[in-house]
Parts: sequence; structure tokens; C-alpha cells
Amino acid sequence: MEKPIFDSWETIRLNNDQVSTFDDVIAVESPLTFIVNGEEFATVVCTPNHLRELVIGFLVSEGVIRFHDDIKSIQIDEQHGFAYIELTKKLQKTEPSKRVINSCCGISRQFYFQSDLQTARTNDYPLTISPNQCLHLMTLLQNASTDFKKTGGFHNAGLCTVDELLAIRTDIGRHNALDKIHGYIFLNKISVRDKVIVFSGRISSEVLLKVSKMGIAIIVSTSAPTNLALELAHDLGITAIGFTRGNKMSIYTHPQRIIEP
Amino acid sequence: MEKPIFDSWETIRLNNDQVSTFDDVIAVESPLTFIVNGEEFATVVCTPNHLRELVIGFLVSEGVIRFHDDIKSIQIDEQHGFAYIELTKKLQKTEPSKRVINSCCGISRQFYFQSDLQTARTNDYPLTISPNQCLHLMTLLQNASTDFKKTGGFHNAGLCTVDELLAIRTDIGRHNALDKIHGYIFLNKISVRDKVIVFSGRISSEVLLKVSKMGIAIIVSTSAPTNLALELAHDLGITAIGFTRGNKMSIYTHPQRIIEP
Repeated sequence: MEKPIFDSWETIRLNNDQVSTFDDVIAVESPLTFIVNGEEFATVVCTPNHLRELVIGFLVSEGVIRFHDDIKSIQIDEQHGFAYIELTKKLQKTEPSKRVINSCCGISRQFYFQSDLQTARTNDYPLTISPNQCLHLMTLLQNASTDFKKTGGFHNAGLCTVDELLAIRTDIGRHNALDKIHGYIFLNKISVRDKVIVFSGRISSEVLLKVSKMGIAIIVSTSAPTNLALELAHDLGITAIGFTRGNKMSIYTHPQRIIEP
Repeated sequence: MEKPIFDSWETIRLNNDQVSTFDDVIAVESPLTFIVNGEEFATVVCTPNHLRELVIGFLVSEGVIRFHDDIKSIQIDEQHGFAYIELTKKLQKTEPSKRVINSCCGISRQFYFQSDLQTARTNDYPLTISPNQCLHLMTLLQNASTDFKKTGGFHNAGLCTVDELLAIRTDIGRHNALDKIHGYIFLNKISVRDKVIVFSGRISSEVLLKVSKMGIAIIVSTSAPTNLALELAHDLGITAIGFTRGNKMSIYTHPQRIIEP
């Protein structure tokens, strides 16, 4: 049984000198612990929906799951926040969050976690999109996320073609929203060559790496990038677009994919 | 030598049909790896300033450092992003990010990481603040952070008395901004009984726990809380205020600290 993703909280609202009491709608935040082959692997705090996608997206992103055949079973205890994943293989004793040290050659200079070295991939898809299509996709994302706006506490990620929003996933954690999209792609065996990510949050290095791991060539965000994210986008062949608001947008990397129709 | 916290990136800006190229100012994002007693402990990505405070705040928050005497030496290699911390004691082999399981009694129901059980503390300070003081502190925070607004990619945390902003710390990661404040408090042996945190980000459970670990009774945020954060605030005796904008604010927990002067 899925937990609700909204909760109600008795709140005192001050507006100038006026005081009122009302039940505010707030975002549910819930821990989810991944038990892989019987061993505790990680805990995330998340919005408790689409948990199967979150589990799979996270583990694919970490390089734990590579193929559908790797998964023997997944059981999710929504009430207590545990996901039990049995693999058909041994869990490799890597330490995914260990720092990459002495990476001296070329592209690995910006990687800082060892798991990223294994799973991030360079993208050379010749996909193109027009500025108006980018703006339209952002409008579609914003229209589709109105339910979540009332609490002010969510990030939204959308999987799109250049014309259509195929799926939207929402989470209090922006990385989780992207992992849910990654899980959706993996579970539904969706080809990524013609897909675009639209995103409500900042483009940090971790966000950029997650897009790279999905194999997607273009990310369109409402918000700002960091320099590390842009260096990775440059090196990994990803078109990074930020500050997509109204009729404006900023193209930071690989502008060859942005064309007039 | 400190790294710069801003970078420049050649950017194509589209505004309706107008195309221009300019050097955008973007936030630097930099990995910092903590080597404690010669062993790799954790890596964060952060804005590379106030790193000594970040290191100490993070390790105090994790329960690794408890007293000033615990620290033998701290050396920071800013260029390569490594912090070498030697303690006067052995690093206890706890696993701070392990999930708390079977916590059946009272207050521990919302804790999900074992380290939080050790370091979060219940707050019963009788500190009071007026609504106008809250609004004034938020204005001070916003005025003090104008330098960072241009990139759109930072979170700000301020340490305040009820009347004054004492210190502001900024980071691309909101947890880091709070850890820097925590390090500032620890290094300067600041009494927290009369202090307030003002904060630009959402009040998640992790944010609330960090405030609790500092020993501070009041957090004033511009943004939304989550239900898990509010349950923790309720149980830990912390006054949580959100959506502090213009002349409005929402008081979620322990409103007894909000009084008219």
C-alpha cells in the first residue's frame, strides 16, 4: 500500500498583524532503505511514490544493476520504508562513494566518485531541438506539476520527446526525481536516443551525471548550472540549457543540437 | 590558497528571437574529501570557501568531533579538495548512515540514521522572538546575500541573535551552508541559547536535524517544510517557521517562542 505524499499540519499564519490558524498541506518525506542481497546498501529520504522506479533507477545509476536479468526480485515494504532487492549475481564489493584519486588522463578529471567512472557515458546522438520546443516542454512540465506547487517543496523531472512530455516524476529530492525517471526508462525499455530531460532544479554535477547515465543528450532546466556540471556536460557530450523561463533560455554546452526548425 | 567561488562560462542567451553570446557568472562546485586519521571518511561537493568550518561542522554533526580537544590537527589542500583531520582519539567505527531499525520507544521513531540518535538534542531554551524580528532577520539575510543572487545557485544560512545577523555562510548545498555555520559556532565557542538560524532553503528532516545538533531553538526559513522535519521539530522542541516572505510567515511548531514585544 502506497503512503500518501501529502500531509496536513496545523499552522499559524501571520499576515501583517492578522493571525489565522489553518491546516497547511505539506510534503511527506519518508526514508527508504535498500537491502541488496540481504545487506544494507543505502538509505534515501524521498517522496513515497513510484518507489519501484526509484529503487531501480538508483541501483542502475550506482552500477549495481546493469541488465534486466540482474534482478531476481524486488519487494517494497512501503509502510516501514524498506526495499528488498535480490540480484541474480553477487553484489560487487565496490565502494561507490569513494573518491576517485590519481585520475590523470583526460575525461576522468572531473569524476569524483568511483561509481561514476563505471556508469557515466559520453553521448554523441545527433538529436536536435528548436528553442520553441524547449520552451514548450518546460511549459508542459510546469502545467503537469500544478498539483505539487501548493506545497512548494517538490522537484519535477520530465522525460520528453522534442514535442511531448511522456512521463513526469516528482520528489522532495531532485536526485530522486531523476532516479525515478531512470527507473521508468529501464523498466519500460525506452529508447533514449530521441529523448530530452526537462527539470525544475539546478544542474549540479550529480544531476548532470544522472542524465549522462540515462544516456540522454539534452537537459533543459529552469535553473542555474554549476561549473563542474558544465565541465562534465562539455566532456560527456551533453547539451545543457538553463534559466528556461518565459521566452528566454541559456545554452551552455553543445549548442549544435539547438536549431531552428 | 582558496579557490574562487565564481567561474565564467561562454553562454548563448536566447530571448525571443534575439541571440547573444556572453560570459555568464556561474557557481563553482568542488569536491572535498575528508581523510580522518588517515582513512577516507566522506566526500561532499561544495562551494570552496570557509572549508575549515565546513570540515568541523560536518564532523561535529556526524558525532566524530565532540570537544575541541578531540582535534589534533586539520590541514586542507584546497587545490585538490582534500581535508586531512587528525584526531587525538581513535575514529570510532560507527556507520553513521546506517538506518535505525527497531527503534520502538518514543522520540526515536523519526530518526533514520544512527548518528542522529547520538547527536540530535532536545531544546528547551525559553528564547522568544517577535514576528517583526523574524521578518527583519530574513531581510538582513537577503540583503547580505546579494553577491550570490546573480548566479541563482546558492543557499544561504545566517546565524543571528533576535536582532542581528552575526554570520552568513553560503553554499551550493544547503546542508553545507548549515555545516559551515555549525563549524563557525564550534570554532568561536559561541553560546547558542539566544541564537536563531535564518535559512533560504526548505526545512527538510536533515536541515532540522542540523539545527537541533547546533543546539539552536528557532529556524526561520523562506521556504516549505516537510512533514518529517515538522515531526522532528515538534519532538525536539524547535520552533520551525516557513514561508517567511514580505510581511507573512507560517509558524509550524512551538509557537510559544513567538511573542509580541
